[in-house]
Amino acid sequence: MLIYVDTPFNEEQKDQLTYGSPEDLFVFKDEIESKEEQLATLLKADILLGNPKPVEWLEKANNLKWVQLYSTGFEYYRNIKIPAAITNMQDYYSQPCAETAVGGIMALYRGMDNFGVLKKEKKWVGYTLRAHLQLLQDKKVVILGYGNIGKRVAKILSGFDCEIKIYARTAPEATIRTTDDLLKELGWADIVIGCLPGTAETKGLFTSEMIRAMKQGAIFSNVGRGNLVEDEQVLIDALNEGKLGGAVLDVTAEEPIPADHPLWDCRNTILSQHSGGGNVSEYFGIAQFFLENLERFKKNIPLKNPVDFGRGY
Amino acid sequence: MLIYVDTPFNEEQKDQLTYGSPEDLFVFKDEIESKEEQLATLLKADILLGNPKPVEWLEKANNLKWVQLYSTGFEYYRNIKIPAAITNMQDYYSQPCAETAVGGIMALYRGMDNFGVLKKEKKWVGYTLRAHLQLLQDKKVVILGYGNIGKRVAKILSGFDCEIKIYARTAPEATIRTTDDLLKELGWADIVIGCLPGTAETKGLFTSEMIRAMKQGAIFSNVGRGNLVEDEQVLIDALNEGKLGGAVLDVTAEEPIPADHPLWDCRNTILSQHSGGGNVSEYFGIAQFFLENLERFKKNIPLKNPVDFGRGY
Repeated sequence: MLIYVDTPFNEEQKDQLTYGSPEDLFVFKDEIESKEEQLATLLKADILLGNPKPVEWLEKANNLKWVQLYSTGFEYYRNIKIPAAITNMQDYYSQPCAETAVGGIMALYRGMDNFGVLKKEKKWVGYTLRAHLQLLQDKKVVILGYGNIGKRVAKILSGFDCEIKIYARTAPEATIRTTDDLLKELGWADIVIGCLPGTAETKGLFTSEMIRAMKQGAIFSNVGRGNLVEDEQVLIDALNEGKLGGAVLDVTAEEPIPADHPLWDCRNTILSQHSGGGNVSEYFGIAQFFLENLERFKKNIPLKNPVDFGRGY
Repeated sequence: MLIYVDTPFNEEQKDQLTYGSPEDLFVFKDEIESKEEQLATLLKADILLGNPKPVEWLEKANNLKWVQLYSTGFEYYRNIKIPAAITNMQDYYSQPCAETAVGGIMALYRGMDNFGVLKKEKKWVGYTLRAHLQLLQDKKVVILGYGNIGKRVAKILSGFDCEIKIYARTAPEATIRTTDDLLKELGWADIVIGCLPGTAETKGLFTSEMIRAMKQGAIFSNVGRGNLVEDEQVLIDALNEGKLGGAVLDVTAEEPIPADHPLWDCRNTILSQHSGGGNVSEYFGIAQFFLENLERFKKNIPLKNPVDFGRGY
């Protein structure tokens, strides 16, 4: 079969695929020179491994029987209709994202940002640093969304005896079901962590009123989608004015963040540049997962991680 | 009673003490001008709240019935013999130290150091950051010492499903009992966390041979005492040569670290400047604990957190 690969693999991972399934022909987008030829190959392909851009290319690829996305989210394909089976990476990025959210909050609480700057300046401050540190233990946390990331965050926080309230429409563990109830609970929380996928319902869900309703000195983290926040400037103001104690933003309204954006100067804010899902063996794992699903595809066993572009997850 | 206070309290905490026990006379060292007068007051005092320096002062203070240290460690008083009861802060700093150890490791794994530098430069790197990140989940960890800090570290790591082996002489949870056995286990561990107190037995316990026995790319953290490491230069070399993947050092052989010390330039190393025990309400909590123990002292109820200078803990 002809497998078109639009995923940023290195040579090692390309070998992993070609040696992993020698009977198939893998064609890697970055090895095809012209856009025209790339599109032509995609149109001939039986299988696609990756997330092609422009998104319209996908709609034209009528020969595809199966699309394995290398992402979990796929909101940019929302209006695309194709007959192929579609699978994503589902839970694959959840633990890394959860670790970036909690690691970022711990970095703020335990002064990690500051230590790096002091190290560069070779400056010992010592004892007086201590009064600026906080503990994650026993903190009150609202988790927005209880999909895979939210569950991993809750699991990690169990080691710190945090008190957790979950906002989710359907998850049985959630005690906050509506945005009205969420608004009421925000004054209770020391930490709010956004773990929601990008759907029509989550866009702008975290309103400016909610930011204002948060507890003085509380921390906001977002590892879901940047458009969760209705108005990012209100969040930036709340941070710079000291209303909020800090933020850990893996996702933002604009990505990449432009050089003149006020987020770069935002107080006590960690910008992890959408690296939250990353880990050193990330692409090895994607290739491995694809090869396993390819086996299933060939044996006509139901594919792992099926998704529906229309539903959004 | 006359209570001599040699603890860096601010005005709020001084009020907390004087209003908390109005029948006693609190005299604060930093409000006495001359060294001579400070010593004279200490010699008259019934109770001492704090850790006086020079340490010899303590030996002369024969009127003292009770000494409440504001630290947990007290190795500098090892050879001091006084008739007074002695208490320390025991578990008080354990959770903060454990959070600095794990927070520091997560900062290394999730790139937090790097994000701060990029933010200062307003530089978006984005996707390529991901390949440098690691996960704490499922990591293999050796915890050195299973006192209060070690227990808190293990509890936190339970949220990450880490595999843990404990080195301790007597704790029933420990599976590594001797330094010979420890040496054999070091090649297994992704992370080694030092949580040992400063005693004659722990000085230089982590030998250069042990550093060389660690797994390629492993992380070393120390939140106990700096003299645990037999030869800090060997640790520095292992970090700079890339043999070790990183270090989180709350304690070091020299504190403060001199400006020309090679630690400041050490690769992938977080220097938390002995702030590990800190938290925003640290001195409030110390004053509160002292007032509670003072009640016990007056009612002749056994004091909380008794220690023995000779034994070392």
